[in-house]
Amino acid sequence: MTQDATFRPEARNPRGFQDKRARDLRIERHILESVAKVYERYGFEALDTGAFEYADALGKFLPDSDRPNEGVFALQDDDEQWMALRYDLTAPLARFVAQNPEGLAKPFRRYAFGPVWRNEKPGPGRFREFIQCDADTVGSARPEADAEIVALAVEGLMATGLKRGQAILKINNRKLLNGLLTSAGVQSEGQKLGVLRAVDKLDRLGPDGVRLLLGEGRKDESGAFTKGAGLNAKAAEQVLAFVAAGGGSRSEVLNTLAGVVGGSAEGDEGLAELAKIDAALNSLGVGEDQAAFEPSVVRGLEYYTGPVFEAELLIETVGEKGEVLRFGSIGGGGRYDDLVARFTGERVPATGFSFGVSRLAAALRAAGQASVSEPRGPVVVIVFDQDSMDQYFAVVGELRQAGIAAEVYLGASGMKAQMKYADRRMAPAVVIMGGDEIAAGTVTVKDLDLGRQMAAGITDNSQWREGRPGQVTVPRSELVGVLRKIVEG
Amino acid sequence: MTQDATFRPEARNPRGFQDKRARDLRIERHILESVAKVYERYGFEALDTGAFEYADALGKFLPDSDRPNEGVFALQDDDEQWMALRYDLTAPLARFVAQNPEGLAKPFRRYAFGPVWRNEKPGPGRFREFIQCDADTVGSARPEADAEIVALAVEGLMATGLKRGQAILKINNRKLLNGLLTSAGVQSEGQKLGVLRAVDKLDRLGPDGVRLLLGEGRKDESGAFTKGAGLNAKAAEQVLAFVAAGGGSRSEVLNTLAGVVGGSAEGDEGLAELAKIDAALNSLGVGEDQAAFEPSVVRGLEYYTGPVFEAELLIETVGEKGEVLRFGSIGGGGRYDDLVARFTGERVPATGFSFGVSRLAAALRAAGQASVSEPRGPVVVIVFDQDSMDQYFAVVGELRQAGIAAEVYLGASGMKAQMKYADRRMAPAVVIMGGDEIAAGTVTVKDLDLGRQMAAGITDNSQWREGRPGQVTVPRSELVGVLRKIVEG
Repeated sequence: MTQDATFRPEARNPRGFQDKRARDLRIERHILESVAKVYERYGFEALDTGAFEYADALGKFLPDSDRPNEGVFALQDDDEQWMALRYDLTAPLARFVAQNPEGLAKPFRRYAFGPVWRNEKPGPGRFREFIQCDADTVGSARPEADAEIVALAVEGLMATGLKRGQAILKINNRKLLNGLLTSAGVQSEGQKLGVLRAVDKLDRLGPDGVRLLLGEGRKDESGAFTKGAGLNAKAAEQVLAFVAAGGGSRSEVLNTLAGVVGGSAEGDEGLAELAKIDAALNSLGVGEDQAAFEPSVVRGLEYYTGPVFEAELLIETVGEKGEVLRFGSIGGGGRYDDLVARFTGERVPATGFSFGVSRLAAALRAAGQASVSEPRGPVVVIVFDQDSMDQYFAVVGELRQAGIAAEVYLGASGMKAQMKYADRRMAPAVVIMGGDEIAAGTVTVKDLDLGRQMAAGITDNSQWREGRPGQVTVPRSELVGVLRKIVEG
Repeated sequence: MTQDATFRPEARNPRGFQDKRARDLRIERHILESVAKVYERYGFEALDTGAFEYADALGKFLPDSDRPNEGVFALQDDDEQWMALRYDLTAPLARFVAQNPEGLAKPFRRYAFGPVWRNEKPGPGRFREFIQCDADTVGSARPEADAEIVALAVEGLMATGLKRGQAILKINNRKLLNGLLTSAGVQSEGQKLGVLRAVDKLDRLGPDGVRLLLGEGRKDESGAFTKGAGLNAKAAEQVLAFVAAGGGSRSEVLNTLAGVVGGSAEGDEGLAELAKIDAALNSLGVGEDQAAFEPSVVRGLEYYTGPVFEAELLIETVGEKGEVLRFGSIGGGGRYDDLVARFTGERVPATGFSFGVSRLAAALRAAGQASVSEPRGPVVVIVFDQDSMDQYFAVVGELRQAGIAAEVYLGASGMKAQMKYADRRMAPAVVIMGGDEIAAGTVTVKDLDLGRQMAAGITDNSQWREGRPGQVTVPRSELVGVLRKIVEG
């Protein structure tokens, strides 16, 4: 073939898409399997929808509601209908529920995980495809359904390997702030949204910055002016008192909030819901250190209608320059009672929680969880002599039967390159069978783990043997036992 | 909200895309977990590439090579580059290997699973998104690498629950037919392709039909004429003798083939490769009933360059009209030494096997595998009294702690509807706690599995109890034990 004359595409990933190797996949699968077990124990069943939805089914519930119909990967089908890759797992759930009005026993509790796609500007660590894991209850307006979601999120995160104190679920209720604003005379939805946006910046700007954004507006250091929500001073102070009401136990926060938002019907409703959530969390045994009421939690999405949740990682690690790194928010959710109504006109109450799997994986890795140890390679049987391939294959067959991952080296290189291959594969050991060994019915095993430990200087001297460290010749019948000891060692 | 005035999209799946519920997902996950374990034992490591590839990286290796760049879902990125959703897992592997010339220890053994997308006309049971599971070895030209792929496919399929005799791997080698045609004086690649196409129809048309297609052509019953490969009569008979050489043990078929294709250099090479594959399969303990040489196996894809494999299910089931249904081919693969060269110009030998997960799931279900039993729902705690919610939640917390899936009913309906809900959820049991029970420190458990068995008439009379069958009231401390017995029952 004269391939040189033909076009050669460059081998590259599309922008914002990544390849994941065993190391990453191992953690992701561990997370998903652990979480799925917990979610099923909570009575949630698995659901998987297709990658595409019709664009009209996504509607205005796009990640960035200021740019409807942007932010997704869309294409036109040959029947001219526009389809888009799902950007989350909630919109497909709403479509599924609307499509099966009679087919589902309600409340419908489902969990789902899989890739979602966002057509955004990619950057370092910022991908356009990532895995989400969601659990939602559709068809229950009860605050206890929200409490179950919180409890499930707490237990799910712990099942992945997070220890108590490494994560917390923060809970708020949209109705509280809405009630407070209504009783302060604020009517416009736009103004309420402006208040949410201002509060969302509390971490970054502090109370003084937020006060400006609640009022006329704020000029930042570059001189750029952000228009404020236009509250009067009294209302702004009420909002600031509200968001400062966190800290302490759930019942303490409830008491504080009662003094701050009390009065409006919506505020009272919000308080009553939180009280029921607190009671259910107590019955379920969810500790104060695992789930707290935190009035400053806003959550960006407009569609939430009641309780909102945010899962925050409290793990701190030290970066390359010695700086303290916090992982912060890893997921969230809340009650969204209007999503199914887009299709049917009928309000269907729903509540859920979603987290990003890669982000949690990175946190677990940083926290040094044993559950996410590096993957091991297989035992490598060295090809010492081409005429003995039948012996080598008989050995790997035997090892696999015994549950030990193994392979015969199948490249074309000599001994030295084979040893290097075994090392790069993170093989725990190599098996060497030369003519002498075969004639004597023995095999030689070289413990590469030991070699790596010695290279890292973390072995004790007793493990050294005379001659070649970590290398033994044993009767063929003892091979499985020797390797099992190394692999499980 | 005045939602009536707004646009209401119809809730529907995009054409050719489906929702999968717990029942289907359970089988699929069982298949993927079982197979992944086997593949890792064979020394294959997991790899996951993104959903998109640049269209130029897919090139002419599209499912239907007559329509390059069709059959995929493609869209233009905002930098004007065309991206397409992957239509298989092989093209992304070739791109990945070409992209990492130094980063991979070779031979590189990788497995992958995930959705692939084909922009084809959807139909009943014909989807545009489905899950494939692949294993490939890149960087080994040795026939033993092909043998390992065959052994892995055999063991992988059995790990999913197929019994011996329910599936067979059929092996052929492109070089045999090529060698035979070369020695018969056929030079044109187009003519060779025509021969492959004719042979591929052996099952459907029989030897007489294939003879016509090897020669001048064939008129079908509708009168439509298909042009033949244009072989002369002698060459056509040689091809027919070749494809009829199957049956018997691997060494018997090799002997027969030596007489039919012997002579050309390429044919001899093909025979030598099959002999090495046979030897490795024997050493690995792969039985004659699990992997056979079958010269009539063609595999549609043009890019295979040596051994080809086809996994055939031998399971027969009886359809609704009493007809015998065969599942037939469930996957396949082979050696493709030119795929990476598209990017680099350098030939990188590779061999692999791929199967369709949904198809195997359907077969396992039809074969009545225990591994794919119907999913159970959670134990449902009935809400008898709104004031006792704390008791109900304490019970579900306790049950989940004990590893028993459980939930409190969170809808708004009464007792009867709650019982119906539990039944639809396939709950094994419900827990009832009225005021009397709570005061007495007892709970009532109703065994719904028993109820379903009785409804199906498959219980023995001893299980009937006086009063309400399957219903017992026990001390609260015995609840976990009673439910565990029912759930594990």
